[in-house]
Amino acid sequence: MNGARSLLQGLVAAGVDTCFMNPGTSEMHFVAALDDVPAMRGVLGLFEGVVTGAADGYGRIAGRPAAALLHLGPGLGNGIANLHNARRAHTPVVTIVGDHATYHKAFDAPLESDIDSLARPVSGWLRHPASPASLAVDAAAAVEAASGPPGTVATLIVPADISWSDVVGDGSADGAPAGTGAPRPVEGAGRWKRDGAPAGDAVDGGTVDEIAKILRSGEPAALLVGGRATCAEGLFAAAAVSQATGAKLLCETFPANLERGAGVPAVERLAYLAEMATAQLEGLRHLILVDAKSPVSFFAYPGKPSDLVPEGCGVRTLATGADDVVGALSGLQESVGGSNAPTGGTEGRRPEPPAGPLTAQAVAAALGAALPEGAIVSDEGNTAGLFVSGETAHAPRHNWLCLTGGAIGQGLPVATGAALAAPDRPVVALEADGSAMYTLQALWTQAREGLDVTTIVFDNGSYAILELELSRVGAGASGERARAMLDLDRPRLDFVSLAQGMGVPAARVTTAEEMTAQLAGAFAEDGPHVIQAVLGKGLF
Amino acid sequence: MNGARSLLQGLVAAGVDTCFMNPGTSEMHFVAALDDVPAMRGVLGLFEGVVTGAADGYGRIAGRPAAALLHLGPGLGNGIANLHNARRAHTPVVTIVGDHATYHKAFDAPLESDIDSLARPVSGWLRHPASPASLAVDAAAAVEAASGPPGTVATLIVPADISWSDVVGDGSADGAPAGTGAPRPVEGAGRWKRDGAPAGDAVDGGTVDEIAKILRSGEPAALLVGGRATCAEGLFAAAAVSQATGAKLLCETFPANLERGAGVPAVERLAYLAEMATAQLEGLRHLILVDAKSPVSFFAYPGKPSDLVPEGCGVRTLATGADDVVGALSGLQESVGGSNAPTGGTEGRRPEPPAGPLTAQAVAAALGAALPEGAIVSDEGNTAGLFVSGETAHAPRHNWLCLTGGAIGQGLPVATGAALAAPDRPVVALEADGSAMYTLQALWTQAREGLDVTTIVFDNGSYAILELELSRVGAGASGERARAMLDLDRPRLDFVSLAQGMGVPAARVTTAEEMTAQLAGAFAEDGPHVIQAVLGKGLF
Repeated sequence: MNGARSLLQGLVAAGVDTCFMNPGTSEMHFVAALDDVPAMRGVLGLFEGVVTGAADGYGRIAGRPAAALLHLGPGLGNGIANLHNARRAHTPVVTIVGDHATYHKAFDAPLESDIDSLARPVSGWLRHPASPASLAVDAAAAVEAASGPPGTVATLIVPADISWSDVVGDGSADGAPAGTGAPRPVEGAGRWKRDGAPAGDAVDGGTVDEIAKILRSGEPAALLVGGRATCAEGLFAAAAVSQATGAKLLCETFPANLERGAGVPAVERLAYLAEMATAQLEGLRHLILVDAKSPVSFFAYPGKPSDLVPEGCGVRTLATGADDVVGALSGLQESVGGSNAPTGGTEGRRPEPPAGPLTAQAVAAALGAALPEGAIVSDEGNTAGLFVSGETAHAPRHNWLCLTGGAIGQGLPVATGAALAAPDRPVVALEADGSAMYTLQALWTQAREGLDVTTIVFDNGSYAILELELSRVGAGASGERARAMLDLDRPRLDFVSLAQGMGVPAARVTTAEEMTAQLAGAFAEDGPHVIQAVLGKGLF
Repeated sequence: MNGARSLLQGLVAAGVDTCFMNPGTSEMHFVAALDDVPAMRGVLGLFEGVVTGAADGYGRIAGRPAAALLHLGPGLGNGIANLHNARRAHTPVVTIVGDHATYHKAFDAPLESDIDSLARPVSGWLRHPASPASLAVDAAAAVEAASGPPGTVATLIVPADISWSDVVGDGSADGAPAGTGAPRPVEGAGRWKRDGAPAGDAVDGGTVDEIAKILRSGEPAALLVGGRATCAEGLFAAAAVSQATGAKLLCETFPANLERGAGVPAVERLAYLAEMATAQLEGLRHLILVDAKSPVSFFAYPGKPSDLVPEGCGVRTLATGADDVVGALSGLQESVGGSNAPTGGTEGRRPEPPAGPLTAQAVAAALGAALPEGAIVSDEGNTAGLFVSGETAHAPRHNWLCLTGGAIGQGLPVATGAALAAPDRPVVALEADGSAMYTLQALWTQAREGLDVTTIVFDNGSYAILELELSRVGAGASGERARAMLDLDRPRLDFVSLAQGMGVPAARVTTAEEMTAQLAGAFAEDGPHVIQAVLGKGLF
């Protein structure tokens, strides 16, 4: 048995059964080993950003890591943006970067580069396997590190000769027990659970009681939930605390995986625009963080504060990502005397299917009217997608996956990975036209794997978010040459043609009625679909 | 005047008049300044790999840097693969990475990451501007560093507040003179010259004479030319040396910019496959490097040597990339008594236009029959493109730009940048179907800018190079699950549809006659074209 096969077996033994990949020569033994380890499913992406983003989407839904196999430094480079998003989402991901053979590195061959330097900014854990025999152990360690809590990107940099050489011994000489044992049961994606990951450390009762006391004081307070607190169980506990104490319930701006819709407590998300977030936080004396960071402005703007916490507001942490977040919320619920019966679930209702010319609002209403129960929504709709959250708030229960790290090009790959993690659930990708073009190759993987993903492209012919930002940063009255850099209208992108080129059926819609009809068709039929929603140009 | 405008002016003053960009919020002041500095042309790419690859192509043809504007760490990440190729090509490129405002970094906002760690592996030079006033100086220093020789990637990491704040003073307080002065004349792309870059240090006469003595000894010897030695002037001198001494004339495997065709001395390129390169080098006693690295295997293969220099062969360096490479070759020519009259130019002739079913050979012959004089060929045709070099060897004089760093996804962006550097010259991009999908967004920039690029996609429905490598690395008889990871056939990519989706006219051809007709049409008409050459599946 060679190292590559041992690595694959080690991953499977640790519960990883899906490997997204865009391999090259240095990873060929890993690819060849797929035939020896049938429990591992290989999923090909045509670009590394698809591979890493899909692993992110998979991990968010499955609650356990997929592997992402990348080719040397440049292959890792192409995957960095979505690994950045995964790191921000605390998604468990095991990245495997193939490297030149150990003895080959000294020759500075064309693809040689400093992989460590590229990997560190996006990796919470990094290891260089020492020998073929250590790979099974290294795989187990990577999965453990990736799983957290908090989840993170764990990276193995595997030289080709360590992949192709025979395993001698069982790896225990390398300082850890062999990572053998029966495969962990593959739990699939629980319909509402992310049940793969360990719960984390219990939060001490003193902290819980102290925060309970603050909340019972009657002073203006808010709970800010994020991370693993945005599962239904966490939201129910948080809603009960809110109900019992009058504390406001807020959610971080871009949660990694928010459960919402009918039956789940609604939670107000902090706005992206600092001006709006400031208004949401105004007057607070206490802000309680629950697996969320203290709110800061996404970007700096001249003359505006970066820290959004109002003056005179104290910030306390109930639980970090390393803690048993849901347990801490339950403890707080008990401590404040909150109801034990799940309360505060959102009432179920749908908007009327819209009529007339297509607007961003009409797209949102059409989706709200049609969103299937159990859907997973990957949201990279940016400005044009602004109304979707409101119009789907009362739709049947679903999950919402956001752009956690701000690195554009996440939406389609995350949708792809989510669909593989939950093959029985419909997936919706909300894409802005600009964002869609970063990792559009994900559509091909969706077609190849027959994934049930419906992509709505909000086509406003521009980087509308940047039109907004251009004025927000005080860059002055923008001229024609500046505006041309934010303009996607010359030529206008034809997403029907682009999707069909990758084997995905697609349609272009210009009225609300067409939107409704296309959504119905896409949800009724298995496999991927793209709907190009043609809107007016620019911002709203 | 704010820092962003000063930076733009500084770049223009140093001779940089083209900025490829995919900006975000932190770069908005830079974008706004385009209207104040009309000498700077902004060119939008829909993905950062297009931006950096286009800057590489521009620099290879213009001989002076373009700028590449990127958004924070993830934007840089997306551009790393093609910066890696540019670094390997010794192309002058000025990379500008926008960062969060200095005071905002402490807040660890979602897009915060370790930009330095990402930038270092692909940057020969890196600077953090200290103030708005220093930006003009920093721009001049970056252009100087990028220009070399040897050329390199020079990176400026520019915080948003340094961009938006007013310039106070002239930057000399930051330790260098202000980078003002009249703009350097913009020379455009000389038809056969890369005349922007400084020549480099003179090689000392002792080295030249010593190498001349070796070559005159009559022992089997070869000149291995690369880098700036592959311009026509260098090749004429090298050919004269070869003719006078009997030394073999070889070229590195993937030259950044090789002049070839009728009238230019032909040079045998070292093969990509180590087995073939070993045969080319067999029996040599002396290998003379001229701005080239000593030959090594691209990848390591079990049981095969990494170093391809035969045993008993001495390796000497005539000139490195820092030296006056062409001057050194001319000196050597003189020292060995080589003819001063340009000799050894390739005879001009074309293959007959092919007939019958389309094969990789027929595509190559059709191109050889039609390649316009003065063409620039960006070659990422990989396995299916193997025959093109031979069939175009006697075509009218042209330039050939190779995949220097092995990071796939270079071809279309490099073609895009080359076309902007030389608007009067036809550009041909040779693309493999797999490779084309990494940075296909380049087609949109070609359409927007009306660039005269003809792209031939060799469609064999697979990562054929990896089918070859899978057996070469000794990964054994590959099974069905392994082969599926190298297969692009489910679904087959429709490049006509993909190109049209980005506004580029396209055609699908299945016979040699159609190929000839489509090439004639594409060369006769301005603007971009894509020709999907449908071949049999897999390797040849």
